[in-house]
Amino acid sequence: MSSSRKMFKLFYDVTSPYSWLAFEVLCRYRNVWNIDLKFKPVYLGGIIRGSGNTLPGLNPNELLYMVSDLILLSKYFGVPMFRPSDLSKKDSLNAMRFVTAVAERDKEGDMLERVSIELWKRMWRTHQDIIQLASLTEPIKDKLRSVTQEALEYKCFGLPFIVCHVNGKAEVFFGSDKFELMAYLFGEKWMGPYPNKPTATM
Amino acid sequence: MSSSRKMFKLFYDVTSPYSWLAFEVLCRYRNVWNIDLKFKPVYLGGIIRGSGNTLPGLNPNELLYMVSDLILLSKYFGVPMFRPSDLSKKDSLNAMRFVTAVAERDKEGDMLERVSIELWKRMWRTHQDIIQLASLTEPIKDKLRSVTQEALEYKCFGLPFIVCHVNGKAEVFFGSDKFELMAYLFGEKWMGPYPNKPTATM
Repeated sequence: MSSSRKMFKLFYDVTSPYSWLAFEVLCRYRNVWNIDLKFKPVYLGGIIRGSGNTLPGLNPNELLYMVSDLILLSKYFGVPMFRPSDLSKKDSLNAMRFVTAVAERDKEGDMLERVSIELWKRMWRTHQDIIQLASLTEPIKDKLRSVTQEALEYKCFGLPFIVCHVNGKAEVFFGSDKFELMAYLFGEKWMGPYPNKPTATM
Repeated sequence: MSSSRKMFKLFYDVTSPYSWLAFEVLCRYRNVWNIDLKFKPVYLGGIIRGSGNTLPGLNPNELLYMVSDLILLSKYFGVPMFRPSDLSKKDSLNAMRFVTAVAERDKEGDMLERVSIELWKRMWRTHQDIIQLASLTEPIKDKLRSVTQEALEYKCFGLPFIVCHVNGKAEVFFGSDKFELMAYLFGEKWMGPYPNKPTATM
């Protein structure tokens, strides 16, 4: 089924480390699976509010699990990340408006990729500020709002949220652990986190 | 690392369809990965209450996602299941006390496996009753309570919850989508849902 037309939309926020993993893996598989990959920056706060959900990791046991889960996942996927000591002051609205502005100006997506990864690195690797960014114009705020709304129309409730359009049919996947299932669905092969070399061991 | 000592505990409740998937996959991989596999029946209601969590799928968008996710997962894992029209009347306390009674009498685990699968089939395939079971004695209630407590001591917050003891170190995994990561962690190979034949396609 490799000749099928595949268009994937990745809805993400740089505040979501699982979104970073999904972003990296989809970039690695883009040519292997021959996907037309669209990046859709949204605001996680808007997804949580708009779907009536709660932030992940509010439960103390679940938070503890997520911390060790992320350590192992970041090794497995080869995306080094280190949890900031204080997440509560890291609202991503300004950062995601900035990403949206880049997305609006850069239709090819190269700059959007570099900026997104840079922001994830600042937040989840080097722990630099992502709040103080140049002020942005009103249309950009509207654009971020409208892409967030688009995700909600697909019944999104958290990030990363991946919409796979295969032969015109949309299938949605939540999380960074659904690549195997995705590959199964459209008849491709999941070859682990590095499609071009054998799976690493610890 | 195949010669390492591996003991996995699977905490499950027959009300959890993701637990059924994890149960089937671990049974298939038991000999392939050379695991000493321990089944730990617990009561999901007790896990949710004891960890201060909420039941999965309370958010309407998330529930919608889980319904289609389960359809695809049950095909992929080869475990046919069909969602009952009414889940609200399916409290599993009596069923899990019954499973606990079986576990207490059957230290080898064969009967426990058969009974657990039978109950999952009744709930998630043929939609038969799992509430009206013979009354059970007080020690069995205590046993179910104590295994549920054991899961909570591992900081469990939902099911399936898998504790992997590899060379004496305990690592925990939540959900039915962590086998690839599990295999990576202890140097085994994940060969998809059917380790003894090539991965099926749709």
